[in-house]
Amino acid sequence: MKKLINGPDAVVTDALRGVAAAHPQLAVDVENKVITRASGATRGKVALVSGGGAGHEPLHGGFVGYGMLDAACPGEVFTSPVPDQMLAATKAVNGGAGVLHVVKNYTGDVLNFQMAAELAGDEGIEVVSVITNDDVAVEDSLYTAGRRGTGATVFVEKIAGALAEEGADLSAVAAVAREVNERSRSFGVALSSCVVPAAGKPTFELGDSEIELGIGIHGEPGRTRAAHMPAAELAAVALDAVGADLPLDNQDLLVMVNGMGGTPLIELYLMFGEVCRHLEARGARVVRNLVGNYITSLEMQGFSLTVCQLTDSLTRLWDAPVDTPALRWGR
Amino acid sequence: MKKLINGPDAVVTDALRGVAAAHPQLAVDVENKVITRASGATRGKVALVSGGGAGHEPLHGGFVGYGMLDAACPGEVFTSPVPDQMLAATKAVNGGAGVLHVVKNYTGDVLNFQMAAELAGDEGIEVVSVITNDDVAVEDSLYTAGRRGTGATVFVEKIAGALAEEGADLSAVAAVAREVNERSRSFGVALSSCVVPAAGKPTFELGDSEIELGIGIHGEPGRTRAAHMPAAELAAVALDAVGADLPLDNQDLLVMVNGMGGTPLIELYLMFGEVCRHLEARGARVVRNLVGNYITSLEMQGFSLTVCQLTDSLTRLWDAPVDTPALRWGR
Repeated sequence: MKKLINGPDAVVTDALRGVAAAHPQLAVDVENKVITRASGATRGKVALVSGGGAGHEPLHGGFVGYGMLDAACPGEVFTSPVPDQMLAATKAVNGGAGVLHVVKNYTGDVLNFQMAAELAGDEGIEVVSVITNDDVAVEDSLYTAGRRGTGATVFVEKIAGALAEEGADLSAVAAVAREVNERSRSFGVALSSCVVPAAGKPTFELGDSEIELGIGIHGEPGRTRAAHMPAAELAAVALDAVGADLPLDNQDLLVMVNGMGGTPLIELYLMFGEVCRHLEARGARVVRNLVGNYITSLEMQGFSLTVCQLTDSLTRLWDAPVDTPALRWGR
Repeated sequence: MKKLINGPDAVVTDALRGVAAAHPQLAVDVENKVITRASGATRGKVALVSGGGAGHEPLHGGFVGYGMLDAACPGEVFTSPVPDQMLAATKAVNGGAGVLHVVKNYTGDVLNFQMAAELAGDEGIEVVSVITNDDVAVEDSLYTAGRRGTGATVFVEKIAGALAEEGADLSAVAAVAREVNERSRSFGVALSSCVVPAAGKPTFELGDSEIELGIGIHGEPGRTRAAHMPAAELAAVALDAVGADLPLDNQDLLVMVNGMGGTPLIELYLMFGEVCRHLEARGARVVRNLVGNYITSLEMQGFSLTVCQLTDSLTRLWDAPVDTPALRWGR
């Protein structure tokens, strides 16, 4: 295992020290592993808190800032944070208007966020949770009952964060978060495995010309192994999987081609070009996009496709100013 | 070789189609491989043109936009663009105030940009070239006489681009570009090799616990092979190499910890934390930073460190608004 780390035990805390040094606009509690805006709680604003295992950077810490999250709490690599972290984050950013928890559908995350919400409730903080479950690859999987939450989480955090920034109340912010999740679907493809530092060996093995279709963001098995294929065919496979569950024809779409962490940007742009070509043939319009590393799986090579059916209202919220380490525009 | 491509021959043009689809603020001439701002030439402004082999994305196309480059021309992967491309880019963005060519010090790039500058001169366009050569690892290397140009190129393009946007003349813009290059030094470390699509096999081989110190951005040999070491020691090695050539103590520094393409962001933040710790011990102040993938080597794992001694004037230009696919703030 060759990684830029000091040792498997200190990866997350050492990385948080780097996040703190890089981004003075964030406040990083390294010991308790909580990242908040340096400006603190915003009085009267619904606060957004997310979290989950580390190893998916920039998700979630890279999305803390104006127009998106108020706090993020990373667990150890590919391991849920604990309720105490989530509670600390929730209390730190509560501005009196309630707190939205954005939770990816993994059993550990769901249970721990539920406990944190109850503990926050005991302290008089109103919490609503929205669970993302956009990955069409499999129903039930390692770590998950139902569908896994993946790329749509980025869209939910951006769009719900924009509505919260405008002063909407908790039920409205939760409603738009659920709407974005319901209108979004994802599908991932792995060309290689990844090595969790504490394990020291690849999570799974892939042959020299083999790929995994429907990969999960922790290397959970997908639908099938296949022989590697050209990008144009891979785009069709991913779009067919997504399109079987979400109408794409004649829709206005937000499309993300996301790198799994070890994929060169030149390949992500190439995949995005192929995805656009296929969507155009279906009469769909790609009106907004993200191409890059947004929800990763350590150094895994591959990509995931996330598609969201936009409405005028969702497009407006997507375009609203955002100022975070990983997404920044319009301000 | 598992890559998200359709075939080795079409990688760059297929990727440019994706760039065009992703960024309506850019105009992409896929056939001639030239990326410009969609707004075209800016009358009366010095124009900045850069280019070089593809495979280093987001460099250079990701830096085209307000406050940075006017045009970029990528060659094939790890191969210089040809003079015709550079000339086409130069003519497309010439606004009558002259054009600055920002050239990384590789023999092919230098010769081809020189020819392009002469051809542009024949057509009445004043061109000045600034060559970056910040990599302290080796004097002379595969493809290079003298030092290689690497991470400082990002700093040069940002800071000279800001001055050009303010309306400075060609000699002033060239002078600040040279100043930034002279005040910057880089050192790279590879944990793995990379595969050029046309070659189909790794550029070099590294043992399971071996790293290359002083790697070039095309996999050119560095100073030495070493056993893999903890991040804290790697930071010290890179800083010692840089610091042997550029005084760091008590300086205000711009520091980039750059991923080589296949390195997870969590590791880059961790490295940045270690670099800051070492610099603090030397009494240096890291007043600005970049952590992420800015000048890559396909899917290579590893990082490079680039340090620039700032002045008040350079800091002001660094902070000036920029609006490109890969760098965006303040506007």
